[in-house]
Amino acid sequence: MKLYYSSASPFARKVLMTAAEVGVLDRIEVVATTVMPTAPNTTVAALNPLMQVPTLELDDGSSLYDSKVICEYLDWEFNGHVFPREGARRWNALRTNALADGIMNAALLIRYEVTARPEALRWSAWIDGQRRKIAQGLDQFDIDPPAGGDALDIGGIAVACALGYLGFRFADDHWLDGRPQLKAWLDAVAQRESFVRTMPR
Amino acid sequence: MKLYYSSASPFARKVLMTAAEVGVLDRIEVVATTVMPTAPNTTVAALNPLMQVPTLELDDGSSLYDSKVICEYLDWEFNGHVFPREGARRWNALRTNALADGIMNAALLIRYEVTARPEALRWSAWIDGQRRKIAQGLDQFDIDPPAGGDALDIGGIAVACALGYLGFRFADDHWLDGRPQLKAWLDAVAQRESFVRTMPR
Repeated sequence: MKLYYSSASPFARKVLMTAAEVGVLDRIEVVATTVMPTAPNTTVAALNPLMQVPTLELDDGSSLYDSKVICEYLDWEFNGHVFPREGARRWNALRTNALADGIMNAALLIRYEVTARPEALRWSAWIDGQRRKIAQGLDQFDIDPPAGGDALDIGGIAVACALGYLGFRFADDHWLDGRPQLKAWLDAVAQRESFVRTMPR
Repeated sequence: MKLYYSSASPFARKVLMTAAEVGVLDRIEVVATTVMPTAPNTTVAALNPLMQVPTLELDDGSSLYDSKVICEYLDWEFNGHVFPREGARRWNALRTNALADGIMNAALLIRYEVTARPEALRWSAWIDGQRRKIAQGLDQFDIDPPAGGDALDIGGIAVACALGYLGFRFADDHWLDGRPQLKAWLDAVAQRESFVRTMPR
C-alpha cells in the first residue's frame, strides 16, 4: 500500500496513527506530496479527483480516501480495535471523530486564509468564525475527554491529531491553556508509540 | 428524533434521503435552522460545537453529527441497506460518498466566497481551485456512475444530493453538460421517492 501524505497534514497523521495502533505502520509506503486547494496536483488527481491527502493506493491500483475511509479500511482489513463495531461505543467514537475532523478543517481554513490568500483579501469574520468552532470543540473535549489508554479509538486518535496540529501550526495561541482535563488527556496519549512515531516534522 | 437542518444544505438532504430509503423519513421531526460559518448559532452549538447542519438530537437528549455518522446510525438502527456491511462494496460506497462530500464542500466554499464574503475580498484562484475539484469529481462519476435503482447506497445518495445542490445553486454552470452517463444516472435516480420528497425549496 502507498499512502500519499504530507507530514504536516493532521488528516494524514490520523491514518498513520491508526496504522500504528493496528500494528501495520511498517506495511505502508509513504509518498510525501504537496497539495494546495489553489494548485492542481496531477499525480494525486489520478487517484483522487479532490487532490487531497491522505489518499491510499492499494496494490491492485485502486485507491481509497478520505482519512475516515482509509482508517476504517485498515482497521477492518487487519483486525484492529480502532472502530467499535456497533452500538453506543461506535456512535460515540464516530461523533468524536467528526468533531475532531471539524476542528482540523477549521484550522486548515484559517491556515489557507493567513498563509495562502493574498493579505489584502483576508476576511477577519471568517477567521473569527473558524476560531469559534475550534474553541467550542475544545471546550467540549475538556468537559468530556475521549477514551484513552488501550481504549483509544478513532475518536481519540482524531482528537490527538487535531491537538497535535494546533500545537504545530498555532503554538502561539496556547489552545490548551484553561483546558486542564484535555491537556492531561493529551499528555497521556502523547506517550503512546503511535503518537510519537507520527509527529509532524 | 429531531433533525436540525436547512432545506438548502446538501448534507442535510443526504440524511433525509437516507431516512427515506430506510423508510423512516416520517419518524424524523425536522427543525429548520440557519447556520453560517461567520455567525454563532447557540441552539445548534448546544448539540454540536461546530454549529453545522445536519445535527440529529436523539430522544435521550444526546446528539449525532456529521451527515455520514447520522446516515450510518439511521441505517444500522432501522435495518436499512444503505451502508454495505463489509468488503469491496463497503469501501466503494464510502469512497464514492467521500468524493461526493468533497464536491459539496467545494461548492459550499464557492458559495461562501461569492455570497457571504465582501466582494473586495474575493480570491479568484480559490474559486478556480474549488471548481477544479468539482469538475474532476464529476468527470470521475461520468466515467463510472455509482450503482442506482434498488442497489442505491450511501455513495449514490451522496452523489444525487451533490448534483441536486449544483443544479439548485449553480444552475447557470450546466455542470451536467458533456457528462451524458452521469446525466442519465441522475435522471433515473431523480424518479425515486426519496429524491422527490427531499428536493431543496
